[in-house]
Amino acid sequence: LRFAVLAGGTGSAKLLRGLKAVAGEFTVISNVGDNFWRHGLFVAPDLDTAVYTLAGLEDSLRGWGLRGDTFNALGQLARMGEETWFNLGDRDLATHIFRTEQLARGRRLAEITSMICERLGVKQRVIPCTDDRLETYVTTSTGPMHLQEFWVKNRGEPDVIGVEYRGEDGAKPVRAAVEALEVADRIVFCPANPVTSILPILAVNGIRQAIGRSRGRKVAVSPMVGRGPVSGPAGKMMRAIGVEANSLAVSRLYGRLVDCMIVDPADSQDAKVIEREGIEAVESPILMRNLGDEARLAREVMTA
Amino acid sequence: LRFAVLAGGTGSAKLLRGLKAVAGEFTVISNVGDNFWRHGLFVAPDLDTAVYTLAGLEDSLRGWGLRGDTFNALGQLARMGEETWFNLGDRDLATHIFRTEQLARGRRLAEITSMICERLGVKQRVIPCTDDRLETYVTTSTGPMHLQEFWVKNRGEPDVIGVEYRGEDGAKPVRAAVEALEVADRIVFCPANPVTSILPILAVNGIRQAIGRSRGRKVAVSPMVGRGPVSGPAGKMMRAIGVEANSLAVSRLYGRLVDCMIVDPADSQDAKVIEREGIEAVESPILMRNLGDEARLAREVMTA
Repeated sequence: LRFAVLAGGTGSAKLLRGLKAVAGEFTVISNVGDNFWRHGLFVAPDLDTAVYTLAGLEDSLRGWGLRGDTFNALGQLARMGEETWFNLGDRDLATHIFRTEQLARGRRLAEITSMICERLGVKQRVIPCTDDRLETYVTTSTGPMHLQEFWVKNRGEPDVIGVEYRGEDGAKPVRAAVEALEVADRIVFCPANPVTSILPILAVNGIRQAIGRSRGRKVAVSPMVGRGPVSGPAGKMMRAIGVEANSLAVSRLYGRLVDCMIVDPADSQDAKVIEREGIEAVESPILMRNLGDEARLAREVMTA
Repeated sequence: LRFAVLAGGTGSAKLLRGLKAVAGEFTVISNVGDNFWRHGLFVAPDLDTAVYTLAGLEDSLRGWGLRGDTFNALGQLARMGEETWFNLGDRDLATHIFRTEQLARGRRLAEITSMICERLGVKQRVIPCTDDRLETYVTTSTGPMHLQEFWVKNRGEPDVIGVEYRGEDGAKPVRAAVEALEVADRIVFCPANPVTSILPILAVNGIRQAIGRSRGRKVAVSPMVGRGPVSGPAGKMMRAIGVEANSLAVSRLYGRLVDCMIVDPADSQDAKVIEREGIEAVESPILMRNLGDEARLAREVMTA
């Protein structure tokens, strides 16, 4: 069976770890909206989180970066008076240095990501949804700012009025991502912030259509438990785009793209409405506290 | 008294440390011929050695890089299959990342070097001889290669047929370097490999002329003791350009640019010939084993 998995962020990493344990081969189509240039290097946090997780090198406690990494280069940049609010470990820097050098040589992000996967021994394919510039910008009361500036530099504190995906009009999908979606027997939407992880992927021209053309079953895992997200700024972001922060609203954001929503038993009220709206709802615990939880939920998305 | 110091490499760093201890203020005009792009970053080893030394951050045992640095980013690059024969510490990488970002923003090397000096608390001025591309290439029996490829990657082993300074026709001097030379009361040629540290500085159009225009006394320290250099590939390089590897030959390479050569007492035969050729020769131990030696030789170049 061919799985294509839409992923971005820490909840996605947990499900990817579960899928790695129980499914083995699959294709990850990663968000790129959180990519940005930092200290002159091209940083791709969601992409790297997926790659590091599948390589078994991830720092699973922090949810980002490499396990056991040090931060001496960043400390020196701070000493030099640079703003160092975005954490970059020394080993992690190797990835950004490599990627930036390859971009300067004219290689595209998807190709470079394949190279990194191969060199780190990742068996699954990890594909950015687009090679083009697509950046999630958050409109706050003090103006627009990049997602990383909002979430990391300003700790998610500013009021959010809206969200835009800069570059979405021109961003073309990576061909291998479209093909993986078209031939997939199952397409999985990871439990992720819909606004900052999944919708940016769907904003790339041709991705929605490829999912629509697929005959595979489309299963989404809600990132919400009860009246809010498991972690992160999903609630604030969803309210900013004018919807509530619950599993029903997530289901409505994905709409007819998905056949089945996995929601937490705490959201059985939402599940009933989701069913009435024509999407199958499966109740299953979505909190992943350890590899056992991750593998169990992975099996659920493979069979639901 | 205004000192201008031509510098490059590890012998120069020792004299700079001595000058810092006894002279305080001076201007360093640094070699750039060993600069090169590595992993997509612009690395300037001689420039950084001068800056780190004057900042008191240098690893004086190794003769390059920052004291107490770690090498985790480089280790990860190696794990990713990159060639990592050029050692770059994690803290050291901060300098290269900063410089490369500033270059990408359109700043010139001299300006960036001033920024680094200021941020690291360096009181002396450190000026690259040129902002333009000037790279020392070594012609070997297997073809030309960058100095770093010859010296670091190939451990100085290939036979050397010749040396060229790529870019010397177009390289313009940094204006502040020319001015510092013109107004200097004393110009010091550090004990350095003439072929790879001093001659590349002199190869920049206008530098020789600025030294010639200066009314200051010009004092050079020989890097040779007896029949060879204190360290490094100076002997091989000098033979490659058709001269012998001794203090007399160094004196002849600098010619009328210098008024006075400081040579080791072991080279008193050379000293006599140097005097006969019209350049004052001062015999003084040039080996610097500790800060005491460094300060003593610094006082010698300040007063000779």
